[in-house]
Amino acid sequence: MKIKVINPNTTPEMTEDICVSARSGASPGTEVVCLNPAKGPGTVEGWYDEYISISFLIEELLKAERDDPADAYVVACFGDPGLYALRELTDKPVVGVAESAIALTRFVAARFAIVTIMPRIRLMLEELVERCGARHRCASIRTPDLSVADFMDDYDRCEKILIDQAREAIAEDYAEAMILGCAGMAAFVENVRKALPVPVFDAVASGVRVAESLVGLGIGTSKVQTYKPPEKKEFKGLGELFQP
Amino acid sequence: MKIKVINPNTTPEMTEDICVSARSGASPGTEVVCLNPAKGPGTVEGWYDEYISISFLIEELLKAERDDPADAYVVACFGDPGLYALRELTDKPVVGVAESAIALTRFVAARFAIVTIMPRIRLMLEELVERCGARHRCASIRTPDLSVADFMDDYDRCEKILIDQAREAIAEDYAEAMILGCAGMAAFVENVRKALPVPVFDAVASGVRVAESLVGLGIGTSKVQTYKPPEKKEFKGLGELFQP
Amino acid sequence: MKIKVINPNTTPEMTEDICVSARSGASPGTEVVCLNPAKGPGTVEGWYDEYISISFLIEELLKAERDDPADAYVVACFGDPGLYALRELTDKPVVGVAESAIALTRFVAARFAIVTIMPRIRLMLEELVERCGARHRCASIRTPDLSVADFMDDYDRCEKILIDQAREAIAEDYAEAMILGCAGMAAFVENVRKALPVPVFDAVASGVRVAESLVGLGIGTSKVQTYKPPEKKEFKGLGELFQP
Amino acid sequence: MKIKVINPNTTPEMTEDICVSARSGASPGTEVVCLNPAKGPGTVEGWYDEYISISFLIEELLKAERDDPADAYVVACFGDPGLYALRELTDKPVVGVAESAIALTRFVAARFAIVTIMPRIRLMLEELVERCGARHRCASIRTPDLSVADFMDDYDRCEKILIDQAREAIAEDYAEAMILGCAGMAAFVENVRKALPVPVFDAVASGVRVAESLVGLGIGTSKVQTYKPPEKKEFKGLGELFQP
Amino acid sequence: MKIKVINPNTTPEMTEDICVSARSGASPGTEVVCLNPAKGPGTVEGWYDEYISISFLIEELLKAERDDPADAYVVACFGDPGLYALRELTDKPVVGVAESAIALTRFVAARFAIVTIMPRIRLMLEELVERCGARHRCASIRTPDLSVADFMDDYDRCEKILIDQAREAIAEDYAEAMILGCAGMAAFVENVRKALPVPVFDAVASGVRVAESLVGLGIGTSKVQTYKPPEKKEFKGLGELFQP
Amino acid sequence: MKIKVINPNTTPEMTEDICVSARSGASPGTEVVCLNPAKGPGTVEGWYDEYISISFLIEELLKAERDDPADAYVVACFGDPGLYALRELTDKPVVGVAESAIALTRFVAARFAIVTIMPRIRLMLEELVERCGARHRCASIRTPDLSVADFMDDYDRCEKILIDQAREAIAEDYAEAMILGCAGMAAFVENVRKALPVPVFDAVASGVRVAESLVGLGIGTSKVQTYKPPEKKEFKGLGELFQP
Repeated sequence: MKIKVINPNTTPEMTEDICVSARSGASPGTEVVCLNPAKGPGTVEGWYDEYISISFLIEELLKAERDDPADAYVVACFGDPGLYALRELTDKPVVGVAESAIALTRFVAARFAIVTIMPRIRLMLEELVERCGARHRCASIRTPDLSVADFMDDYDRCEKILIDQAREAIAEDYAEAMILGCAGMAAFVENVRKALPVPVFDAVASGVRVAESLVGLGIGTSKVQTYKPPEKKEFKGLGELFQP
Repeated sequence: MKIKVINPNTTPEMTEDICVSARSGASPGTEVVCLNPAKGPGTVEGWYDEYISISFLIEELLKAERDDPADAYVVACFGDPGLYALRELTDKPVVGVAESAIALTRFVAARFAIVTIMPRIRLMLEELVERCGARHRCASIRTPDLSVADFMDDYDRCEKILIDQAREAIAEDYAEAMILGCAGMAAFVENVRKALPVPVFDAVASGVRVAESLVGLGIGTSKVQTYKPPEKKEFKGLGELFQP
Repeated sequence: MKIKVINPNTTPEMTEDICVSARSGASPGTEVVCLNPAKGPGTVEGWYDEYISISFLIEELLKAERDDPADAYVVACFGDPGLYALRELTDKPVVGVAESAIALTRFVAARFAIVTIMPRIRLMLEELVERCGARHRCASIRTPDLSVADFMDDYDRCEKILIDQAREAIAEDYAEAMILGCAGMAAFVENVRKALPVPVFDAVASGVRVAESLVGLGIGTSKVQTYKPPEKKEFKGLGELFQP
Repeated sequence: MKIKVINPNTTPEMTEDICVSARSGASPGTEVVCLNPAKGPGTVEGWYDEYISISFLIEELLKAERDDPADAYVVACFGDPGLYALRELTDKPVVGVAESAIALTRFVAARFAIVTIMPRIRLMLEELVERCGARHRCASIRTPDLSVADFMDDYDRCEKILIDQAREAIAEDYAEAMILGCAGMAAFVENVRKALPVPVFDAVASGVRVAESLVGLGIGTSKVQTYKPPEKKEFKGLGELFQP
Repeated sequence: MKIKVINPNTTPEMTEDICVSARSGASPGTEVVCLNPAKGPGTVEGWYDEYISISFLIEELLKAERDDPADAYVVACFGDPGLYALRELTDKPVVGVAESAIALTRFVAARFAIVTIMPRIRLMLEELVERCGARHRCASIRTPDLSVADFMDDYDRCEKILIDQAREAIAEDYAEAMILGCAGMAAFVENVRKALPVPVFDAVASGVRVAESLVGLGIGTSKVQTYKPPEKKEFKGLGELFQP
Repeated sequence: MKIKVINPNTTPEMTEDICVSARSGASPGTEVVCLNPAKGPGTVEGWYDEYISISFLIEELLKAERDDPADAYVVACFGDPGLYALRELTDKPVVGVAESAIALTRFVAARFAIVTIMPRIRLMLEELVERCGARHRCASIRTPDLSVADFMDDYDRCEKILIDQAREAIAEDYAEAMILGCAGMAAFVENVRKALPVPVFDAVASGVRVAESLVGLGIGTSKVQTYKPPEKKEFKGLGELFQP
């Protein structure tokens, strides 16, 4: 089984971290390939970043399907960008890391908290949690004032903040499981897990497991209505690859 | 007051129809400018179409803000694509035509129905209605098997279907107002209105009025958190225009 | 275009303030007429006040329709009293100021807060927000212990409290826009707006704009079911005006 | 224990029917007094009717409290008009018949249906069901095209329609209990009950029982916030009775 | 009228306290019989306790129906254990004390709080409140770190904690009525009531009143679908009593 | 990795079918052990059946943990009985088959339908879907009048009914994926899958995959609040095994 994990941002160091997480989540015998587009934002920290990244994410999926298809695709950004469009383009499962982690929490915890980056993405995550049907299971979304860049520049301070926020979520918000809500937090999972008395979900690893599960169950994307292939039409000014 | 109406698809004939609607919705003295990107899908009938169109929509807004800013922007596609990102890019109001029409129905009707195109966009519109807080006000979303192209190719048949669907929504679903749920339906509004005993909302005209209202009230996009300007970072492979 | 703004309380000074707001929200060329009934409560600060005011509000509308009809009516009290009944009595739009302001926030802000008067009206406003489909967009309803009378008696203290509450809503509740939740707060809008970094909605001005928009779009109240004229029957002990 | 049941319409024949229901619901030893105002609509079949009736309903309660207080009050109209205001005016329980019947269904049935009068009151009842927290328990609201007057003019046809509608609700909507959703349907309860295999709730009798229960438990209306006595102020043009 | 109140735990002292509450809630002339199974947990403080208690609760009901049927049954544990199953086994009403108290609050208060025992049952009560359709009416669920055993061992400390928590719920959470959320709190009701300015609901007394009301109204459990008698089948290893 | 699948009914033939499904869902190298209690109902088709089965289900889990612990447990009954209690008794994951299938649908389909047995379990499944946060994703719950026994007695008729119901759900309810909503339907999965154009979820196989995923990710049951071990206390009349 081959799973392609696409990091929608253009920072190869982050793709490497994501790859470590992705492999930690995979079963023996699963081939995990991680990649990122060459174009687009260096990190995704808002809607402009996200929407711009989606067209390059789509391009990566179209190229993969044409040249070297995988058995399933995982989008490794906690906003779960572009999933609905990607599902129109393949009959393989396409899985988001946020929806995967959120879905798995319910099997082991009454409620979870998300610790993520800066407050400006709060609405994005609230709508994501709502779409996942998890509003009443979500104890809190904690948005310390951190950027993705901070993770690399100031690892120790970030780790402390993440752990402190998680502890507060347990003590004050009744959280019983924790999700690290940024694909770029892969490098923190191990230490956060050691510091906390609750299950800690690595979203990327969760996504890879869910993708594997669907492949293992013989389940692909439904093609009867919502995720049918795009309607035939001209896409002006775009290459052959993009024409439906 | 100048309002720019952006049709995110690349079909100039549709932009012309939209422009007629947009002007019908504007007050005397408001300048309405309609445009569409040169690149992207000819029509928007699913998520792939929508997400691809968003990057060109963003480009149009960035160019407008740089070269010839308007007092407000209206996105003229019933899926309300890309609004959250566009709002990060300007402090002028950015208004979707679907959310505008849905918001206005509540002042004159207990519940509304949407008559739109093919069933594959049902989830898209359901999530849109939910985001607008109108689930319990929405009597039904009627999705006859029509494409946007049909509107031009077979006007009479389409008109009949739209009117029949609307009548059924009134009789069976308790709809008391009607929204034509596709910017491409502008040319049908007048005849549908004549045929029905309930208020019929032209979404494009609604969007223009809402944009005008905000400008008139001196209200712009809130810049404190969610819609702050994008974080500074490199967007690889993209021109100057796109760099935050 | 002529718009009548009805203040349901019987305090002419407040009607004057409301009129300033109403005119600030109107387009050039729109005639705004403000009035209040001669009978009923001096202010509306609870349900008893509200329900008693509704019969006089209805009377004003009936007289207006009989003697000097407007193109639309605005009810200028933040509880949006009696709208459903008023809509049965005319085919012109009848607009509440609370529902107008709430509807407009979504175009420019991820979430809004309401700063209003005393805590006893909390349930009233919560149910209003829920009916508007805005529960998840409403960051908080702030109810400092102020009466409507305080606004006139102690302007400076009230202004400070309103601004402090709004600042707290931004800092603690993630509000990104503010609604002044009392028609009697018209006189504070300008100073509150200067003091805050977010859009501030004057509810009365918002209501006038929404009413104008509907008239401009040629949209009236739907008369097919919910808002049909009242059933024919005798209203005992009431004059000719009230008989359906 | 004395319970006053107030029919908000002005039709004494209906008050008599209501009184039969009310007494059928009372325990031995409970004194039930039924009354209606002298002024207002002959029946309540929409919001205009309802809001006009509320001021006279309030007047009846104020007189009762002043002259001959009861231990609890029941408002006998299925729209539950004016409850929130009435609760401000007394520390005795004030109970609506609709909310009572809806509350009691959950103890004996997975879901209930309401069979009521004409379709124009659908939104009124949907909002009432929602306020009662029973949306997901409500199998359907059936609105045959009947007026309250029809009940008296054409008893047999009405009975047949009510029974047919109830049977359809059981067969098609999965209803497992039935509420007759109009205080004027009191005269039908017995025959409907005989014809159906499910529990049938007489709303007036339910309201009386709930009122009794609260009195028996020593529970009165909470006076700390929402239902505090009205704020002191002048009610212009209204008699002494109405001044808070 | 005879009502059996079943305490699902095996602590007779608690059954005695419950019996005092139950009788305080009953009308004159109602016979109240209280009992508890001989087997099962001494107290119910989590799901394991609850599910184990349910089979013995079922056994008590089956024996009662066979040997000495009552007119209605009340389950006296605030988690409302096993109600759905018990309703399949009788056509008499089966009433939970939590759902009863929650249902009655809405007639006298805008919102209520529950003061209960240890935090581990928070999810249990949240789901219960949700099933009762009361999420938006529930100001808070307060879970001080108390066990049921503490009530007997350290009455004074517990009383103080309950009152303090209730006062905080009124002051901070806008609660306007209070429910003591544990059948074992019967002995505290009187003193808590004296200490608070809001209505205090004794859940056991509430349950008895609701049961009485249903019997008085001639309403039994609906037997058409959900609560039909169990399907005929073999229950291996269980005695005659348990065979459907 | 060893996974124990517990069928809560006492029909060994059904456990065998379940085992085939369970193994079809497992990865190579995962040991799957299937079992059922010796006591309890032959099938689970209502709440009485379910609650009685839970105590024996609990006993099986306690014995497994004491004598031969697995890495995870799967409860193979579509009502997901007793999960919350089982999670208090172990720090391994305990997974329900219904919640697993429901969780997985969202990755490949906009909405799903459940085809299950007789209508009496409709409320049970509606509440389950609601607890899973999937109400708006659930196109329909189809309840043909079939018992579990029918599956064995009349295989061909059942298969036809299941396929017909599923086709109707796709055509009329906009379902895009299908869940067979009864663990006893394992033997139908293959043929149903062949007959339908949408993904078909075998709930038991889904449960095994989810259990595997959690084990693979190193995630166990959270023990901080809701799922802590039961409080220490006496369980009267029950053996050593049951004492916490």
